[in-house]
Amino acid sequence: MTTLHSPPGPEQATLRVRRLRLHTQHQPVVIMRTDCHVCRAEGLSARSQVLVSGGGRELQATLFQVEGNGQLALDEVGLSETAWEMLGIAEGAEVRVTHAPALESLASVRRRIYGNRLDAAAFTGIVQDVVAGRYTDVQLAAFLTASAALPLDENETAYLTGAMIGVGDRLQWDASVVVDKHCVGGLPGNRTTPIVVAIIAANGLVMPKTSSRAITSPAGTADTMETLAPVDLDIAAMRRVVEAEGGCIVWGGAVHLSPADDIFVRVERELDVDTEGQLIASVLSKKIAAGATHVVIDIPVGPSAKVRSEGAAFHLSTRIMAIASRFGVSAKCLQTDGSQPVGRGIGPALEAFDVLAVLQNAPGAPDDLRLRAAILAGAALEIGGKAETGKGLALALETLADGRAWKKFEAICEAQGGMRIPPRAVHVHPLEAPHAGRVVQINNRKLSRLAKLAGAPEAKAAGIHMKVGLGDQVDSGQPLLHLHAETPGELAYAIDYAAEAAHMIGIEE
Amino acid sequence: MTTLHSPPGPEQATLRVRRLRLHTQHQPVVIMRTDCHVCRAEGLSARSQVLVSGGGRELQATLFQVEGNGQLALDEVGLSETAWEMLGIAEGAEVRVTHAPALESLASVRRRIYGNRLDAAAFTGIVQDVVAGRYTDVQLAAFLTASAALPLDENETAYLTGAMIGVGDRLQWDASVVVDKHCVGGLPGNRTTPIVVAIIAANGLVMPKTSSRAITSPAGTADTMETLAPVDLDIAAMRRVVEAEGGCIVWGGAVHLSPADDIFVRVERELDVDTEGQLIASVLSKKIAAGATHVVIDIPVGPSAKVRSEGAAFHLSTRIMAIASRFGVSAKCLQTDGSQPVGRGIGPALEAFDVLAVLQNAPGAPDDLRLRAAILAGAALEIGGKAETGKGLALALETLADGRAWKKFEAICEAQGGMRIPPRAVHVHPLEAPHAGRVVQINNRKLSRLAKLAGAPEAKAAGIHMKVGLGDQVDSGQPLLHLHAETPGELAYAIDYAAEAAHMIGIEE
Repeated sequence: MTTLHSPPGPEQATLRVRRLRLHTQHQPVVIMRTDCHVCRAEGLSARSQVLVSGGGRELQATLFQVEGNGQLALDEVGLSETAWEMLGIAEGAEVRVTHAPALESLASVRRRIYGNRLDAAAFTGIVQDVVAGRYTDVQLAAFLTASAALPLDENETAYLTGAMIGVGDRLQWDASVVVDKHCVGGLPGNRTTPIVVAIIAANGLVMPKTSSRAITSPAGTADTMETLAPVDLDIAAMRRVVEAEGGCIVWGGAVHLSPADDIFVRVERELDVDTEGQLIASVLSKKIAAGATHVVIDIPVGPSAKVRSEGAAFHLSTRIMAIASRFGVSAKCLQTDGSQPVGRGIGPALEAFDVLAVLQNAPGAPDDLRLRAAILAGAALEIGGKAETGKGLALALETLADGRAWKKFEAICEAQGGMRIPPRAVHVHPLEAPHAGRVVQINNRKLSRLAKLAGAPEAKAAGIHMKVGLGDQVDSGQPLLHLHAETPGELAYAIDYAAEAAHMIGIEE
Repeated sequence: MTTLHSPPGPEQATLRVRRLRLHTQHQPVVIMRTDCHVCRAEGLSARSQVLVSGGGRELQATLFQVEGNGQLALDEVGLSETAWEMLGIAEGAEVRVTHAPALESLASVRRRIYGNRLDAAAFTGIVQDVVAGRYTDVQLAAFLTASAALPLDENETAYLTGAMIGVGDRLQWDASVVVDKHCVGGLPGNRTTPIVVAIIAANGLVMPKTSSRAITSPAGTADTMETLAPVDLDIAAMRRVVEAEGGCIVWGGAVHLSPADDIFVRVERELDVDTEGQLIASVLSKKIAAGATHVVIDIPVGPSAKVRSEGAAFHLSTRIMAIASRFGVSAKCLQTDGSQPVGRGIGPALEAFDVLAVLQNAPGAPDDLRLRAAILAGAALEIGGKAETGKGLALALETLADGRAWKKFEAICEAQGGMRIPPRAVHVHPLEAPHAGRVVQINNRKLSRLAKLAGAPEAKAAGIHMKVGLGDQVDSGQPLLHLHAETPGELAYAIDYAAEAAHMIGIEE
């Protein structure tokens, strides 16, 4: 369009990389000096989205700027840990920093905001950019909010699920039936997974289970399992365990399944917005990427659980089964009681002791946990072809009772790196009933908060040991629960909260 | 509920404040050591929302964590500039850092996401929390996206406007008519404000104008005006100027009007989502907070302007007038030609020269700028009661022609601190027509980008001087525009962009 008489070009806009060891969670951040020549030449300012390229890789990040005070040299760019890991470059290496390119897939997000449905290609474009770190928090929140304001329909949910599977690794197993399970969450102490895997593997089905660590809860299955055996296995190690024992219980973070999910979940948590479409895409993308052919979904329903009505649970079940079948996966959803915690322990080690008690048929092992695990395992045995319809529960209970599940669990722990004994807390303190009466209500959310204040999940031994359940008759001064903490400070925090929080455990005179 | 036997309480969780001189734009950020005792005791992790309290003030911020490497002592908390300014505390002072309290107004945002309309109290709650810095980017984006997915209706727009006025200062003037104007934006070089203020004040009406600096454009009115006189006046100084001269053109950043708007605008920009409701609340909250009784709104309509169709402009006009009237304000909206830049200059000083030429009746002064300013001023003179309907334009042109507007402008500049001569760029370079033909299309957005690459608005003299307009016949090699830059590097950036960007100026053979 125009004839150019080029003057001398700008100097090479390279900077040297400096690792800041700055933790910003998923958000990649880079820091440059306000008086840096690249900022001036490129017109970069605080919160600009920048593209950092070097060593054949590139990274998109949010720029913060610092006034020259010796922290950073003029020709340096500081990288947060997330940025550092994504770029994978040596300290002091040269990189170029420029304005980030326009985000093409944002046009799809805008169309979705304005009420248009998206096709598979649009979801793929969005999810690819999200996983590449090109979305800011603002843009991520807009996508998720738009998918809540006009809920994803069945097609869109399937497209999103497919897109999320497409951007991560996908495991394949040498078995025609590969079982997985998932709990929709919201119920403290619901630690059925180690028991279910042991039962299933003991009956000859393959169940390569990856689990998460706690994010907002006092314990994730990976946190609990870690008190019993190593869980930080990579894919090769996981494969060896599954080939030897038929099952494993490892941390999902080390295997790269559905990486988009971690990013979406973080933003949904910040909004405290849960949508069915995102939930289904999250669950199914992880299971399908893990190679599952048959999936059992536990949906606890209760007033302080994630799903609060039977109607919502029914709709969710129907939609999950429909989407799963599009990917050739057979899903079975089970509505379960979500009115109170499961087992006695809340917190990594305390839940592990419940698991051990059930597996070892110990006297006083929590019946509710045993029965829930057996129901889920029974459903999996039925859809996996190891039990006739209606016979799965009996087979699961028998596998527990005759010690085969315990033997299998021990073998899995050994294969994962060796069995461990969970730690016990030094500081234990009872919370007592203020008056006599009957326990009529238990608030799961407040109990979770209490266990976290006591130190769970970072402090493995910390948490709550429940002494009562719904319907129990208690005397004044009788312990309702024991708080477990590793330090006196954490114990005091938890006690302070318990004193303030009303109706954590409701007692009717 | 429970009887407590309190063990010793946790140690006092105080830290010493350290100013990091870290620029993060509006987002308040604090940095603590990962091994800091407060992080452990409170269970804080990267991206936790924290409450920092000290010196009788408090601040909500996003926490980043740094591994101990000497940048920050174990008992220090580092504050970004925004956090530092919000807390207003001395370096080394003691503060407490705890988990941020639950954000009650987020329940309203969630209700809005799920399709419920909000009442005035809900908008007030949201806007108060936003201005207090309690909303994360994710939460802000969710609110704005929800207001786009289900557009704000007239009531909601009025509630939002009222809430935005309520959280800032509100100016009062000793006059029954106080005029203001606003341009909906998107048109480079449309620098009518200094001319309009001069005409209005010369005719005895009060026009206390606050303007913004450029955010995404190559020049804001405050940037242009700053090349002619100081604009960083506080409210007291602004009041003295207006009392003496009837008008002013100052930077709105120093006066605290509608502070919520700055925050919303930043997020909308990141999403590139513009909604009518937010636009109206933004414009009217600022005008009403500035004490305006009569407002003229310039709505440029064109294919690359912000408003792209007459239908959209009409709907916007109707809604603006309706909302304004609820606050007792008389609004007049004018649709104007938004098909090409106004005047010749794009960039702070280059636009200032256009303004001066019009005010001084210089030979060759841009007629389009003169006429646009006169039309807007004429409308204001009519609704302000200084001209009969249909006579405003003539009065405005007369005020320009007889030199009264120029005299008033000089007096305003003197009152603001003294008139200045705008700077001129050292590096000037023509972009030439690649072939002969007629100019049939000019892309405003690409011209803005070009001016910014040349250094505008930071480099005051930088930008574009247009040599042609729509409909002009040009020869091959004839200059279409001149690029102005303060450094050779910036000139080269602009030239590179011009070579790549197709259809910036379309010439038909």
